[in-house]
Amino acid sequence: MTEPDRIEDQPLHALHPADIADELQRCDAEDAVQELVGLPPKLAASAFGELEAERAEELMALMGESQLKTLLINLPHPDAADMVGYLPADRREEVLNTLPAPLQADLRGLLVYPDDSAGGIMNDHFIALRADLTLAQVLGQLRSRPVEDEQEVSYLYVTDTRRRLVGIVSIRDLVFKNPDSRVSEIMNRDVQSVPVTMDQEALALEFEHYHYLGLPVVDDRHRLVGIVKASDILVVAKEEATEDMQLMVGLSGEERLLTPWYRSLSRRLPWLYVNLGTAFLAAMVVNLFESTIATWTALAVFLPIVAGQGGNAGMQTLTVIIRDMALGEITPGDGRRALMKEALLGLINGLAVGLVVGIVGWLWKDSPELGLVAGAAMVLNQLAAALSGVLIPFGMKRLNLDPALASSIFLTTVTDVAGFFFFLALAALLLRATGVQ
Amino acid sequence: MTEPDRIEDQPLHALHPADIADELQRCDAEDAVQELVGLPPKLAASAFGELEAERAEELMALMGESQLKTLLINLPHPDAADMVGYLPADRREEVLNTLPAPLQADLRGLLVYPDDSAGGIMNDHFIALRADLTLAQVLGQLRSRPVEDEQEVSYLYVTDTRRRLVGIVSIRDLVFKNPDSRVSEIMNRDVQSVPVTMDQEALALEFEHYHYLGLPVVDDRHRLVGIVKASDILVVAKEEATEDMQLMVGLSGEERLLTPWYRSLSRRLPWLYVNLGTAFLAAMVVNLFESTIATWTALAVFLPIVAGQGGNAGMQTLTVIIRDMALGEITPGDGRRALMKEALLGLINGLAVGLVVGIVGWLWKDSPELGLVAGAAMVLNQLAAALSGVLIPFGMKRLNLDPALASSIFLTTVTDVAGFFFFLALAALLLRATGVQ
Repeated sequence: MTEPDRIEDQPLHALHPADIADELQRCDAEDAVQELVGLPPKLAASAFGELEAERAEELMALMGESQLKTLLINLPHPDAADMVGYLPADRREEVLNTLPAPLQADLRGLLVYPDDSAGGIMNDHFIALRADLTLAQVLGQLRSRPVEDEQEVSYLYVTDTRRRLVGIVSIRDLVFKNPDSRVSEIMNRDVQSVPVTMDQEALALEFEHYHYLGLPVVDDRHRLVGIVKASDILVVAKEEATEDMQLMVGLSGEERLLTPWYRSLSRRLPWLYVNLGTAFLAAMVVNLFESTIATWTALAVFLPIVAGQGGNAGMQTLTVIIRDMALGEITPGDGRRALMKEALLGLINGLAVGLVVGIVGWLWKDSPELGLVAGAAMVLNQLAAALSGVLIPFGMKRLNLDPALASSIFLTTVTDVAGFFFFLALAALLLRATGVQ
Repeated sequence: MTEPDRIEDQPLHALHPADIADELQRCDAEDAVQELVGLPPKLAASAFGELEAERAEELMALMGESQLKTLLINLPHPDAADMVGYLPADRREEVLNTLPAPLQADLRGLLVYPDDSAGGIMNDHFIALRADLTLAQVLGQLRSRPVEDEQEVSYLYVTDTRRRLVGIVSIRDLVFKNPDSRVSEIMNRDVQSVPVTMDQEALALEFEHYHYLGLPVVDDRHRLVGIVKASDILVVAKEEATEDMQLMVGLSGEERLLTPWYRSLSRRLPWLYVNLGTAFLAAMVVNLFESTIATWTALAVFLPIVAGQGGNAGMQTLTVIIRDMALGEITPGDGRRALMKEALLGLINGLAVGLVVGIVGWLWKDSPELGLVAGAAMVLNQLAAALSGVLIPFGMKRLNLDPALASSIFLTTVTDVAGFFFFLALAALLLRATGVQ
C-alpha cells in the first residue's frame, strides 16, 4: 500500500508513474519539464501518460521536438496518440514526421478515432492468433514475444486471414490441451466485441453491466483493431459519471480545481448569464404582483421559502433520475413509473412541509391568511418540483440532449416561476376575496 | 454486442444473467420469484447476484428455505455472503444452518467484513501457490483444478506456510520458465496488496490511480484472504462517485428510481425540513428589512435574482471541488489554491453579472439607484458564493464529514442569507442617505 505521507519524502524517480504525475501536475510548468527530462525515458513517458490533458498540452508547448520524440516513442500507443492529438495542427505533422515509420503509421491509425470512443482508449498492441496454428506453435510464438505485449488477461483472440475476429482462447486451454490440436478446435466462437466507434460512456456501461475484464474492439468489417481492459475503463467511467454533477449546474465536464481561472471563467460565465435570463423570468412573475406585495409586505418574507423548498425538492428528484441514467439503470417504461412515484412523493412532501410553513406563517406574522396561502402554495410548488424533476431529464433525453445539461438551472426556473406565481396569485385572490384589494 | 431491442423478444433463460436481473428488477415480486424458480439453478443464482440489494431482500422474503439454499449454493461466495447479510438476523442463522459445513464456514468468514470494505467485495476463491513447489508441480495442480477457480487475470499469488502473501508469479513465467525451477526463484517479491478492512471508495481510488487489473487482499497478519478485480470495482467506483450528486442535495446515496416511494420519503423529507430551517434563516433576514421593502417594493422583484445567481455560481464552485475530491485529485495544499482561484473568479463573475443586473435594474424600473444596489449586491454575493463553495467542502472534510453531505443546502443558505442581506442593507442605506427613510 502506498502511503501518501511517505511519497513526498522520496526522490521523484523512486515513485510510481501515477504519483510522479501528481507532482508534475502541481508544480510550475517549467520545473515540470525539467523534472521530466531528468527521469529515465521509460519512466518519464509513463508519468507523462498519467497527466491531465490540459497539463500535458501545457508541458508539450514547452518541449523541443527531440524531447517530444523521446516521450512519444516510450509511451503506450493510445497515450501517444492522445498526446499527438493535443498538439496544435501545424506542429502535429512536424512531430509525427520525426517518428519511426511504423510508429507513425500506428499513431495515425489511432488518431482517426475520437478521444472518447472505444478506438480512442483501446490498446492496439495485442496478440492475435491464427486459427490454423497448433497449440504447440502458438506457445512457441508467445515464448519469443517481448514481455510488454502481454495482455494481463488470460484470454487470447483469434483472427482469420482477413484479420477478422473469429474466436477466443483461454490461456488455460492453450497450456493444458493437447499441443497438436489446432486453435480452431479449442477456441470459443461466441466472442463478445465492441465497435471501434462506440462512445466511451456506453462502453463503460457494457463493462459494468456484464463485468467484463477485457473486450476486443473491431472495426466496421469486424477486423480486430484493439483491446480495452476494465482498468482502462475505470477512470473513464468515473469521469463520465461525475461529469453530470457539473453539467447539471452549467459547467462543461472537463473542469477541475487545477483548471486555469481564465478557462474556468469562459466555461462558467455563459451559464451564469443563462441563469440570469431565467432569473429575470421569475422576477417578471414577482413584478406582476408588485401591488399585492405593496399591500401585504409580509409576502416578501415568505417568497424565498416557497421557491427555495421547491428548488431543493426538485433537485432531489432530478439527481436520483440523472444518477440512474448515468448508471445505465433507466429503461423505456421508467419515465411513467418515475412520474407517478414522484407525483405521490411531491404531494406528501408538499403537505408535510406546507403544514409547517402554514403554521409558522400564521404564528410568526399572526396571520392565518398568510399561513393558508404559504402552505397551499408550498403543496402546489412541491408537486411542480417533483414533476419537473422527472420531465426535464426525460424530455432532454427524448430530444437527444444530455439529460444533465444545465438541468438544475432549468429546474430552478420552473420552481421559482411556479413558486412565485402560486404564492402571489393565491395571495392576490385572497386579498380580492376579502375586499382588501 | 447485445442489442437492447432484441432482449425483450427472447425467453428469459436465453439472456445474460445481468439482463435477466434487469427483468426481475422491474416485474412484480411474486412473478420474479416464479421466474427465478423456473430457471436452471446456476443461471438463477447468477441473475440473483446481479439484483439491487433492496430487490434481493424483497425476493428473499418471499422464498422458502430450500429455494434460498439452492440459490446460495450456486452463488459466488461474495454475493452469497451479501445475500445472507440482507436476511433479518433471526432468519440468517436458520438459513446458514441448512448449508453444507464448508460453505457455511466460508460465508461466516466473509460476513465479518462490512459490505463496503475490501473484504465485502473480494472473492475468497483464488489460487495460492506454495513457494517451494516446482513449476512442473504447479502446472500439474492447475490442470486438475475445476475451471471455475480461474482468476481471469494472468497472475498467481504465492503464500508461505502461514498463508502469508510473499510473492506473485505471472502465468507467462509459469509456462515458459524451466519446469524444474521453484516458484520462489521466479516470483516477484514486490507485490502490492490492500488490507481487508479498506473502504471500497479508497480501494476504487487505488485501482484508478495505479490502473490495477487485480489486487490481493490481506488480513492484519498479512495472510492472503481474497482477490479483488478491476471488474468488481467498476460498479462500486461509479456508485460511490455519483453518490455525491445525491448527497449534495440531501439524499442518502442508496436511492434509485425503483426505490419504493415510502423509503424515498423517509430519506428525503428530513432534509427538506433541514432546508426549511435554513430557508427561515433567510426569511428572517428579509423580515429585518420589511419596512424597506414596504417603501420600495421593486426590491422584492430583484430579491430572487441576487440570491439565485449567487446560488448558481456557488454550485459551480462546489461541484468542481466535490468532483475533484471524488476523483481523488485533491491534495493538502489545494484548499488555499482553490480559495484564491475562486475568489478571483467570483469577483470577475460578480462584475460581469452585476453590470448586466445593474443596467437592467436601471432601465426596467427607471431607477439608477435600484441598478446600483442590485449590481453591487450581486458582486458581493458572487464573492460570498465562490468562497463558501470552497470553504464548505474543505471545512466538512476537516471535520471528517463527507464533503458532499447536504452541501448544496448549506451553500444556498449562505448565498440566500448573504444575497438578501447585501441587497436589502445596501437599499436601506441608500434610502436613509437620500432621506427617503
